Parts: sequence; structure tokens; C-alpha cells
Amino acid sequence: MIIDSLQAPYYAVIFSTLLSDNLEGYEKTAFRMEELAKQQPGYLGIESARNEVGITVSYWESLDAIVLWKNNIEHTEAREKGRGTWYKKYQLRICKVEREYGFEQ
Amino acid sequence: MIIDSLQAPYYAVIFSTLLSDNLEGYEKTAFRMEELAKQQPGYLGIESARNEVGITVSYWESLDAIVLWKNNIEHTEAREKGRGTWYKKYQLRICKVEREYGFEQ
Repeated sequence: MIIDSLQAPYYAVIFSTLLSDNLEGYEKTAFRMEELAKQQPGYLGIESARNEVGITVSYWESLDAIVLWKNNIEHTEAREKGRGTWYKKYQLRICKVEREYGFEQ
Repeated sequence: MIIDSLQAPYYAVIFSTLLSDNLEGYEKTAFRMEELAKQQPGYLGIESARNEVGITVSYWESLDAIVLWKNNIEHTEAREKGRGTWYKKYQLRICKVEREYGFEQ
């Protein structure tokens, strides 16, 4: 799904990942984290794609909303599990969305 | 590929796309645009993933570098072709990367 209803400025978290060979429990937790993020204050939306690399971009009203989500206990546990097991490598970027353009046929 | 060598602040262009059913010439042009972007001043890197949705994030030294790339003639022609043919929908976001964190096993 592509989010096209937001008004800059707002924030984006770009989460780029390479998965390991041990993905036991990964799908379930990834789904749960997406459901949990949606319930967070300041959550605006999420976009996700994967083939070799995975890129998930979540959108937030403010930096404070991102910090709250980062510190959520269940999210923190999932992150620990991710670092120990599911992810070979990841990069997480916190960005301010300054402008956007859309197109739809 | 995941880019892990950059130092914030810098800029990101998040390009989220849904493709149409007519993809004639798309792969070739997408490859050419990536090659061309790499030659642009201020280009820092690119990350890309696709299944249903495609997400390509390119990284740039400055907003000026992004504007130069936007106005590149061959890129402009490809964009016109994309809007007329390959893309059902897209959203393009220009962001300032403020912080980043990485992990590697």
C-alpha cells in the first residue's frame, strides 16, 4: 500500500534490512509489530517492500512519537530478538519529510 | 544492498511505486536511471526493494543535488514515460536524514 494522504512536514523511519537464515517466528512478530505501531500515538502510516533487501518506511507526526514507539516494551523485546536472530544486517534512518509529490493514473 | 557508510545530516528521496501492466522498456530504463544517478554530483547511494509495492530510496548530499538530478534531461524524459506508461501510482518524498543507527551480525 502507498500512503498518499499526508501533509509535510512529518517524520519517516526508513528501516532497511537483510534477513538471516533463521526466520523462526519472524513473520508473526513482524505482523504483530505493524499492528502495534498502528496503535501508537502519532502513527501516520507504513509502506513495505522486500526481495533481497527489505525496506519498511513508517511515518510519524513527530520525533517524540518515534521515541515513544522505540521505547515501547514489546517493540524493544522484538528488536532484541531481531538483532540476535532474524537480521543479518540493518540500517535505520530517522528523517524529516520536507516535501512530497504524488501521481496516480 | 544496504548503505551503511553515510554521516547524517544528508538527504533521502523515498520513491514508492505501484507498477502498471505495461512494463515494456521499464527494466532497461530503471537500470539506466540508476547508472545515471550514480554519476550525478552529490549522489551518495541507493537502496531498492519490490514485491507488490516498490520502494527505492536514493541518498544525496544536499537538496541542490536532488534538484539537479530531478532536472537532468534524460531523467525528465524517463519520468514522463513512467507517468504515461509504467506507473499506476507513485509517491515521492524528499527528506532530511537526521540520525541513523546500524546493526550487522
